[in-house]
Amino acid sequence: MTGPHPAVAAARRAVRKLLARCPGVPAVDVAVSGGADSLALTEAAVFTGRRLGLPVRALVVDHGLQAGSARVAAEAAEVARKLGVDAAEVLTVEATGPGGPEAAARNARYAALRAHHRGIVLLGHTRDDQAETVLLGLGRGSGPRSIAGMRALDLPWGRPLLDLPRSATRAACQALGLTPWEDPHNSDPRFTRVRLRTEVLPLLEDVLHGGVAAALARTAAQLREDVEALDALAAGFLDRHGEPDIAALSPLPASLRRRILRAWLTAGGARDLTDAHLRSVDALVGDWRGQGGVWLPGGLVVTRTHGRLAMNPPETRGD
Amino acid sequence: MTGPHPAVAAARRAVRKLLARCPGVPAVDVAVSGGADSLALTEAAVFTGRRLGLPVRALVVDHGLQAGSARVAAEAAEVARKLGVDAAEVLTVEATGPGGPEAAARNARYAALRAHHRGIVLLGHTRDDQAETVLLGLGRGSGPRSIAGMRALDLPWGRPLLDLPRSATRAACQALGLTPWEDPHNSDPRFTRVRLRTEVLPLLEDVLHGGVAAALARTAAQLREDVEALDALAAGFLDRHGEPDIAALSPLPASLRRRILRAWLTAGGARDLTDAHLRSVDALVGDWRGQGGVWLPGGLVVTRTHGRLAMNPPETRGD
Repeated sequence: MTGPHPAVAAARRAVRKLLARCPGVPAVDVAVSGGADSLALTEAAVFTGRRLGLPVRALVVDHGLQAGSARVAAEAAEVARKLGVDAAEVLTVEATGPGGPEAAARNARYAALRAHHRGIVLLGHTRDDQAETVLLGLGRGSGPRSIAGMRALDLPWGRPLLDLPRSATRAACQALGLTPWEDPHNSDPRFTRVRLRTEVLPLLEDVLHGGVAAALARTAAQLREDVEALDALAAGFLDRHGEPDIAALSPLPASLRRRILRAWLTAGGARDLTDAHLRSVDALVGDWRGQGGVWLPGGLVVTRTHGRLAMNPPETRGD
Repeated sequence: MTGPHPAVAAARRAVRKLLARCPGVPAVDVAVSGGADSLALTEAAVFTGRRLGLPVRALVVDHGLQAGSARVAAEAAEVARKLGVDAAEVLTVEATGPGGPEAAARNARYAALRAHHRGIVLLGHTRDDQAETVLLGLGRGSGPRSIAGMRALDLPWGRPLLDLPRSATRAACQALGLTPWEDPHNSDPRFTRVRLRTEVLPLLEDVLHGGVAAALARTAAQLREDVEALDALAAGFLDRHGEPDIAALSPLPASLRRRILRAWLTAGGARDLTDAHLRSVDALVGDWRGQGGVWLPGGLVVTRTHGRLAMNPPETRGD
């Protein structure tokens, strides 16, 4: 008696491990594109769902962006049914939002999945997707949060395959006798992510002598822990103090101070805060020279008066 | 009357700004290779040193790695003298340490500069060097600390040009009528850093539509602030508690707990701690199931007994 192929076993183990972190979850949905990642994930979810007595459903999103997308979606649903899901549904969306075709499709997809989910929604992102996400975030330069990558568990989303290479999902499909759908978008160099995958990452692998995807994923995981630690400390501060008390705030390290201020300002209605905004507000604490108010998006002004920070809409600012 | 070329002015401003952060510094040394970065830096240091009444010396390191290196070093010293330094010295080193030729040369260079410095040592690293450092760190996957890049001020080292692009130092040299030395190592594809500079970063610039070096440097700066915040919080904890008190440690976020444990263990003589070591010790705090001691490099064992962590050489471990 032989067990399953190692890649099939690895995907099943990954799903079981993730679901163990979600006690009481009532149902499992799997986002299925018909590609190798989501088919390997579907098989692992069906196997694990049976063991745990959980219903498993496939959700196939039809973005309507390519000719024949309805047929591709119907076929993906059919493969999922053959793999043993309790139900397979096709969700038709219109990807017309802002930010380019990649962002619009992603936003429409997540919105549709969120609207239909019944428990956890498993997504097929692999370690290679994580590496691409980290590189994209680096290119944006928008800070540690954007290069901390995707989280394995961020309910309703679950990404059990985040530690597995893409090659493992291909190997699993082959072992299962499945022929994954090859999305032509996945090789279209008009997409930034495709060029990262097909040009930048292979070159980096060559220059840095291999292991780059794993290294990027490892770095992302550690960054995420640092970001979460500082976020938790900021939340704890506001729980204790209720507001950014200047005497308590002053001795804290700068990046923690700015996080506390961000959380306080956001709770007060500020939107689209940039690092520059936060540094200006922070200067009211750490570099106080009697300066005036700091204007923020969302129509708020932050002032320091009588040793306290106050946040007011401009028209109602006290004197 | 026209002022200096904008690139010359930018370098001078950068040096003045950095030296303003070092009140009381007695003297300025500049590490000079003869390349564009260090020549632009030397001019800016001489100009600023005169204004501040500080002696400025050029230190040229001859690694002896290339034929004619003594002549290159002597010429670099001569150019520095013409730019007005009070003295120019050539330090001859042997780059025979471990870790490949790049690492050996760097270690020998830093050691020689450290041995000879009289105050601050200015280094000519630019924003492009920072971007390469971040990518190197990413490829290693050794965590946020390694991708947080180089610090502008890390005495005795000062890197005033860290916010300027390499193109600015070239423009400054041209405006000053200087012909920088072109180190053949800077275009030798056997060096990882050269391939990052000449292949990976240009491709990333193309794929991500520009601004990558600036984005990497910006991300590095923010990461450094996060790393320093968590380091400061860890140090503050040990100052207050003297040791990793389990009751005080337990409610803290995981990455802060591990930093506290790392600082405590390092102070106790542990060496070469990996993330896995720290997670094992942390499990004595956060995942206590009566497990035995954790063995660490440096001949230490950490145990939890009577609700306290203890660190002992194995032979003197209590019962």
